Amino acid sequence: MSVEKPSVSQELWTDFFAGSRLACARLISVVENSPQAIPEVLDRIIPRQKGGIRVGVTGPPGVGKSTVTAALARRAVQAGRKVGVLAVDPTSPFSGGAFLGDRVRMQRLSDDHQVFIRSMASREGHGGLSPATPYAADVLDAFGLDRIFIETVGVGQSELDVMSSADLVVLVLQPGTGDVIQALKAGIIEAADLFLVNKSDLQGTETLLDSLRFLMEIGGGPRRKSLPPVIQASALQDRGLDEAFAEIERLVSGLVASGLFLEKRRARLESEVRAAIGRELWDKYAALTNAGEVIPAVVGRLLERRRSPYPYIREAVSRVRILIDEERGPREEPQ
Amino acid sequence: MSVEKPSVSQELWTDFFAGSRLACARLISVVENSPQAIPEVLDRIIPRQKGGIRVGVTGPPGVGKSTVTAALARRAVQAGRKVGVLAVDPTSPFSGGAFLGDRVRMQRLSDDHQVFIRSMASREGHGGLSPATPYAADVLDAFGLDRIFIETVGVGQSELDVMSSADLVVLVLQPGTGDVIQALKAGIIEAADLFLVNKSDLQGTETLLDSLRFLMEIGGGPRRKSLPPVIQASALQDRGLDEAFAEIERLVSGLVASGLFLEKRRARLESEVRAAIGRELWDKYAALTNAGEVIPAVVGRLLERRRSPYPYIREAVSRVRILIDEERGPREEPQ
Repeated sequence: MSVEKPSVSQELWTDFFAGSRLACARLISVVENSPQAIPEVLDRIIPRQKGGIRVGVTGPPGVGKSTVTAALARRAVQAGRKVGVLAVDPTSPFSGGAFLGDRVRMQRLSDDHQVFIRSMASREGHGGLSPATPYAADVLDAFGLDRIFIETVGVGQSELDVMSSADLVVLVLQPGTGDVIQALKAGIIEAADLFLVNKSDLQGTETLLDSLRFLMEIGGGPRRKSLPPVIQASALQDRGLDEAFAEIERLVSGLVASGLFLEKRRARLESEVRAAIGRELWDKYAALTNAGEVIPAVVGRLLERRRSPYPYIREAVSRVRILIDEERGPREEPQ
Repeated sequence: MSVEKPSVSQELWTDFFAGSRLACARLISVVENSPQAIPEVLDRIIPRQKGGIRVGVTGPPGVGKSTVTAALARRAVQAGRKVGVLAVDPTSPFSGGAFLGDRVRMQRLSDDHQVFIRSMASREGHGGLSPATPYAADVLDAFGLDRIFIETVGVGQSELDVMSSADLVVLVLQPGTGDVIQALKAGIIEAADLFLVNKSDLQGTETLLDSLRFLMEIGGGPRRKSLPPVIQASALQDRGLDEAFAEIERLVSGLVASGLFLEKRRARLESEVRAAIGRELWDKYAALTNAGEVIPAVVGRLLERRRSPYPYIREAVSRVRILIDEERGPREEPQ
């Protein structure tokens, strides 16, 4: 890793730490568009983080995640919290009318500078969540926000990945659909800390609640000892949202008191360190061996001759020697 | 990588290559339950693969993927193909009645030894597809099957990963739901080679077709030049499946003729080689630096002092030297 020209100007940093919302938006664009700048940004923002809580709001399309998120964000503002919302691609032409109406309400909160709203672009070619979303939450945390809602687009694997960086996950469901099964299969049921049954005035709410209880009983597994709280709500009619918000705040207090909040941060930091070192090892290896050209050529020949790649892999790896320069001694924090 | 006791006995190999279905099932269990045995298995089976075609059948829950898969498998048998089906967790109590009825029909094909059917377990804690699924397909290929259907559970990220190992993807949809949007967001629309509108006797088929055309026009992107074939079918009424099967066979011929089939195999092999070398580099590094204990300790201190991990990462990496032993010379295929 060589020292390179910083991606973020001192002016932007000054504005950001002075509380400029425009600078905050620009910084999120940096982590979103320039992954190589993420270390530089984290170096500056981590010491300024105050432990803002990330609340994931997930659920299948059409259940009213956006309306729920907006309602929870409004309540957080009323409770005196500094609030941010990270939403996935709401500029998509496929978002329905309710979502648009909701955008208008959210826009008002945003215009009043009460809520920092940010859309995260989709991941290229996939349509899933942007991998920069957790870092955008880091930025909002350092910006001084203490409740950061992350609204996902569905209940797939990429949602699960982002949810694993949330401190608390609200799973929004609605009666009368097969969504529970889908959420179960995607592993979201197990990741959820709170079930919010939206549109609970619709038929089928009791059936949905029964299914949830049944799933918890038989499928909860070792990670889940008891059914998480279930809130019946109707975000459009503004019913049940006070209860949901109160429950979230209660869960947050519990997370902080139990140390689970810190434990989650610890696990995330650890996997970040491992992944970063792994990438650097690979880059060094690739530079030494010209792997970028060698591997495709080898693979072409293996394929032609119907050979397993593992003899080649074993051979390549057996020729690698790694030395650790101990002379320079352990300097964990050269800052 | 040291040479270890083989995970697969010579007896099992002999039975497998003699065509024992039981041995084939056992070998799939090996790749499913013992990831460390995968290199050993691939070493033996890759030279025996004959280029069996993997057809992914994906779509949201409830659209009839299993019935469609069964119908296509039957037609493949009738066309003289040797056929396998890899299905995700059909023992799940959440599978509906149609699925069970279908299992019975499939069972009959299986009992007649016409179709090799195998359920792949879910990935631990996630409920997604087993990561061993592509290797199970490798085993079936080496077993001599030439059409291998892989039926997924939904349309999330993990499906996309498995679909990327399929040669051809059939996306099953049904009218009257918002499934198109969900599939679009999961990136499956772009990955699909054939749209199969099941239950096309239901209202809303025209609307669904219009949406598909619209999505292709505006969202197809550079990877997609034209709308893939759309087949209207009703698997329960056995309508449209002949057309679907004929279309699949036509697409397969095109894939092979154009070289795309080989290109997909090449890309998969290349990413396998890169990932395997990367894992080995990490293992060597971790063994030398005691990373398993050091990193958690460092992370704990960083977190306590609110420090960025990147100075530590830079320091750790700057102390790593990688040497490549060139003496032993390039020996690509020591077999």
